[in-house]
Amino acid sequence: MTKKEASTEILNQALLFLNERELQARTVQWKNQLLLITNRDPSSTDLVRLNDFGVVERLVESSHKAQLASREFQRDQSIVNVGDVGIGSQKLVIVAGPCSVESRQQLLQVAQTARHLGASMLRGGAFKPRTSPYEFQGYGETALRLLAEARNLTGLPVITEVLEPSNVDLVAKYADMLQVGARNMQNFSLLRAVGRSKMPVLLKRGMMSTLDEWLQAAEYILVEGNPNVVLCERGIRTFEKATRNTLDLAAVPVLRKLTHLPVLVDPSHATGNRDLIAPMAKAAVSAGADGIMIEVHPDPEHALSDSAQQLDLAEFTKLMEELESLAAVMGRQL
Amino acid sequence: MTKKEASTEILNQALLFLNERELQARTVQWKNQLLLITNRDPSSTDLVRLNDFGVVERLVESSHKAQLASREFQRDQSIVNVGDVGIGSQKLVIVAGPCSVESRQQLLQVAQTARHLGASMLRGGAFKPRTSPYEFQGYGETALRLLAEARNLTGLPVITEVLEPSNVDLVAKYADMLQVGARNMQNFSLLRAVGRSKMPVLLKRGMMSTLDEWLQAAEYILVEGNPNVVLCERGIRTFEKATRNTLDLAAVPVLRKLTHLPVLVDPSHATGNRDLIAPMAKAAVSAGADGIMIEVHPDPEHALSDSAQQLDLAEFTKLMEELESLAAVMGRQL
Amino acid sequence: MTKKEASTEILNQALLFLNERELQARTVQWKNQLLLITNRDPSSTDLVRLNDFGVVERLVESSHKAQLASREFQRDQSIVNVGDVGIGSQKLVIVAGPCSVESRQQLLQVAQTARHLGASMLRGGAFKPRTSPYEFQGYGETALRLLAEARNLTGLPVITEVLEPSNVDLVAKYADMLQVGARNMQNFSLLRAVGRSKMPVLLKRGMMSTLDEWLQAAEYILVEGNPNVVLCERGIRTFEKATRNTLDLAAVPVLRKLTHLPVLVDPSHATGNRDLIAPMAKAAVSAGADGIMIEVHPDPEHALSDSAQQLDLAEFTKLMEELESLAAVMGRQL
Amino acid sequence: MTKKEASTEILNQALLFLNERELQARTVQWKNQLLLITNRDPSSTDLVRLNDFGVVERLVESSHKAQLASREFQRDQSIVNVGDVGIGSQKLVIVAGPCSVESRQQLLQVAQTARHLGASMLRGGAFKPRTSPYEFQGYGETALRLLAEARNLTGLPVITEVLEPSNVDLVAKYADMLQVGARNMQNFSLLRAVGRSKMPVLLKRGMMSTLDEWLQAAEYILVEGNPNVVLCERGIRTFEKATRNTLDLAAVPVLRKLTHLPVLVDPSHATGNRDLIAPMAKAAVSAGADGIMIEVHPDPEHALSDSAQQLDLAEFTKLMEELESLAAVMGRQL
Repeated sequence: MTKKEASTEILNQALLFLNERELQARTVQWKNQLLLITNRDPSSTDLVRLNDFGVVERLVESSHKAQLASREFQRDQSIVNVGDVGIGSQKLVIVAGPCSVESRQQLLQVAQTARHLGASMLRGGAFKPRTSPYEFQGYGETALRLLAEARNLTGLPVITEVLEPSNVDLVAKYADMLQVGARNMQNFSLLRAVGRSKMPVLLKRGMMSTLDEWLQAAEYILVEGNPNVVLCERGIRTFEKATRNTLDLAAVPVLRKLTHLPVLVDPSHATGNRDLIAPMAKAAVSAGADGIMIEVHPDPEHALSDSAQQLDLAEFTKLMEELESLAAVMGRQL
Repeated sequence: MTKKEASTEILNQALLFLNERELQARTVQWKNQLLLITNRDPSSTDLVRLNDFGVVERLVESSHKAQLASREFQRDQSIVNVGDVGIGSQKLVIVAGPCSVESRQQLLQVAQTARHLGASMLRGGAFKPRTSPYEFQGYGETALRLLAEARNLTGLPVITEVLEPSNVDLVAKYADMLQVGARNMQNFSLLRAVGRSKMPVLLKRGMMSTLDEWLQAAEYILVEGNPNVVLCERGIRTFEKATRNTLDLAAVPVLRKLTHLPVLVDPSHATGNRDLIAPMAKAAVSAGADGIMIEVHPDPEHALSDSAQQLDLAEFTKLMEELESLAAVMGRQL
Repeated sequence: MTKKEASTEILNQALLFLNERELQARTVQWKNQLLLITNRDPSSTDLVRLNDFGVVERLVESSHKAQLASREFQRDQSIVNVGDVGIGSQKLVIVAGPCSVESRQQLLQVAQTARHLGASMLRGGAFKPRTSPYEFQGYGETALRLLAEARNLTGLPVITEVLEPSNVDLVAKYADMLQVGARNMQNFSLLRAVGRSKMPVLLKRGMMSTLDEWLQAAEYILVEGNPNVVLCERGIRTFEKATRNTLDLAAVPVLRKLTHLPVLVDPSHATGNRDLIAPMAKAAVSAGADGIMIEVHPDPEHALSDSAQQLDLAEFTKLMEELESLAAVMGRQL
Repeated sequence: MTKKEASTEILNQALLFLNERELQARTVQWKNQLLLITNRDPSSTDLVRLNDFGVVERLVESSHKAQLASREFQRDQSIVNVGDVGIGSQKLVIVAGPCSVESRQQLLQVAQTARHLGASMLRGGAFKPRTSPYEFQGYGETALRLLAEARNLTGLPVITEVLEPSNVDLVAKYADMLQVGARNMQNFSLLRAVGRSKMPVLLKRGMMSTLDEWLQAAEYILVEGNPNVVLCERGIRTFEKATRNTLDLAAVPVLRKLTHLPVLVDPSHATGNRDLIAPMAKAAVSAGADGIMIEVHPDPEHALSDSAQQLDLAEFTKLMEELESLAAVMGRQL
């Protein structure tokens, strides 16, 4: 962290000094502080010299490569605000909505039910990443407009996925939070672009990514001066085929120790199976997740994507009731 | 299922008839019924002929290779009784104890605390499977005797691992339940031996085993006429190294659909990390597990094995309190 | 495949007819043919009607979702030409070069050695995808210019990685073949962009991607009318940590059956270990790979990236001699 | 290593001294030496005292937990003799035979073809480990007798799997080499039993075992004073389902560095697919394997087990020709 009174000139000299030592220094505007970040801890002799510049106010040594994401850098839990929802607070955040936005009626029906049952946010896919080029790819801006309409109607902030850097502005125009999907967790140009947007970002775990790699992906967003990052565990790929992926719930308490960033869990994509969503949602809350992201559809069997893993409205209603009493035991409210 | 009045002679003719058709028929004494099991469903013409023998009372067609373990064979949830503990009932079963039995004092201290806090059963290793031949292999029969003493003192039924067929009788002499460890899940001669013992068996999931393979391993025990099998999820091996294994909690609701056998979860071996045991134990209960198996040690840092993953007595006390309120929400009691 | 004489008007009618049946038809210019592609095989009644339009010359039914990539669509092995190198021909293609382009001297030295020893192409990173934002990210266009200079000097066609759609034109200006890296295998907007470029593309396998997903990723490029796709196996992520990844050489003969696209193998990234590159390169050739991609550096220990997995020039020289005799046994020449 | 002249009394004093320091010392008869092994390197002060006993002739410090298996303990490559076959020598060892011994005619036909084509050993299952209790479990001693007959007829040494400690003597009566299968890699009582037998042992890699665990499993056999251990890579379990397992050929050169034990490769179990056996066998030889183990059956489609992964006699003949020229390139002979 740099001192407030440090002049730009002296700051530039400090940067030059560090870069001559291959410390790849850069400044980052972090909330209302100016940070000076290097790629590794300076040597003790360099530190003495660095002190002479008089720009450093507090020095943070981080053992983790994801410096800004680490608990060593920020001890207090981050709360990421999306509209009036504080992700990471005592409130258990429920994000609900269909896999894909399919029609005005479908979306508004889910949105109103979600609002009515106490959900915090609305999800819905406008741009869908699909394994095959021949599968339904989402309704794009038309879907974005419907999401904005649903938000206006219900007051629920809206989250949707963005697939490429050139689309960030378009999605940001309609949505309240940008989602970076599992396949794009290491799409570094996309991470930089959502970082620059300063919008709240939900970063899903890649299905082949370690927790360390995931935090470093988050760091790509943070280092652009965007502190509004929420992580979302959604299952990893293993040899077991009874479920689509293996939900790694131990990631929740491990991340709690490593990082100050909030953590959600998505049991829909993790399991790929309607019957498993409720037990895994409850397990995630008990493991300490800050919230749950669930796919809900008025008529799952006729959904255009992921029909096997979306709850219908009755199932969702039942789950919300169960989560309410569970949240109380965990010292949270819905 | 065969009719009670079927004579041995006619039964043998039916077996002969089926085996001539390569159906590898056998009889199994299952609780108070006599079952006639084939390796696949007979053809319809064979079924007509089979009917003529007049031995078949009820016919079960199972789509799963683990016939006796399947819900199709037995719709009602099994309750496996160990002493006065019913695993699979409404009671949430907590199995606690040290990784290895190390001394009289260590074991009795844990046992009395466990009893006092409402645990249901006592665990403790006498024969330890170790990756290296140079590691501590357990105190063997000396440890078994201490386990029996701890049971007599506290009334808690005792479970301990058996490593080879030739040791089944010895372990069965002292223990109330036999554990088959993850590395032995497909040690078929051991499965047959614990099956023949008719003792309650806790079958841990192999760290590389699918749910289907696990149920078929259970079937090796069941087909010996031993219905007292409990499954225990303990984490699978994946690329993620932040935890020792990846606890597959979705296995709990998946197994609930596939099998009538009770399911426990072991968060100690799954995570290999003390700080993760409590959140994962709570998550397991919320996912619907019938109970939890936890390693508890009066002085974990000086344990002879698994020092990183055992709770101390204070941590265990706190966890038991948390589990009590969680159990209530899940409609269970401790 | 459509008939040459089909008028645009009738073709449009056929497309309309198919799309009304939710067959999501599109036309693709494939070499010198015009293809009409649907998302699944039409029903027999639809086929009868489709015939009436008189536009269909040959009908291909493909059981694989990656239709254009499948052997059913094209029985003959594809040969992808990059400069005067035919990847997929009898010639065993050796792509060599440093992980990152670091300096003019470094690159030209490797390029000349490679040319001298009979390598076919030159590789070198200009834009580097790095797990951490604080790691060296490549020299960008400066590196591209050096690659072009090395090509002009040695005649070796040049391949380098492109990281985002907006950079495709820039990279295409200097390089002869575009590489899509493992982390971007399902970066669908990048796949479409390299598809539209019509440049030869080397598509690396994602480190947790199945062969089916990989072929469908290739399909995203092919369906843009770009048939110049080469696959490159580079290891998958498993529990084993003795090597950086697990090289899946069985993928080579499996792909040979499924697809007509050429297949290279990259033993450097797969193993992450210099000592393993030569044995794995030879194994890849014996498994039937069309070529090998190897990292070579004049001074691996001081490389700016991947220092542990680059051969020095002496090691590379020895490997080329060994590959020459091995190629002969496999009926290929270097 | 202890000095030849050390008296039993002094040796026992040295053992006592070490065990008081929790070094768990033991003596092992290794070929014609007597070894004194501790569970970790003694401290320097203990070493000084140990020297006073005058029993230590040569001290080996090993960084690997599998001490006897390590290259640090034995620099020279081990050659394990089975009959007149030296596994680990310049000769490329081909072990061929059916998955299960099914009949006299089947076995003798394969054995004679194998002998005629230059194979070194005959394999055939008598006791089969099967996932389901309802699958064919092998013909047991009847099959063992046929294997012995085939050996007498052809001169080929015979290898077959042993499943439990109590069967080691029976199998050893008929076979020339004992196989410990993948599922039993950590069946420690079986490892000790085959160790005590002093017979040559083929130890297959567990399908989710690391190389380190595998070497420690081998150490269980070695520490019984049985140096005749050969390792066999047979594929590991991953997310990829296009092949039954993923053959980890990089294990071959990694093991070459870590251990002096010979390494074979089994492409049949690794791939589960006839068409992949030949390319993977050739790849294994090029990666440096000491030999190949292949399933061959006169009529694979009617085999009682593993019908999808056995070569017929014509395919095997073709493969042997290809391996001959490949062996020459690799500096080996068939």
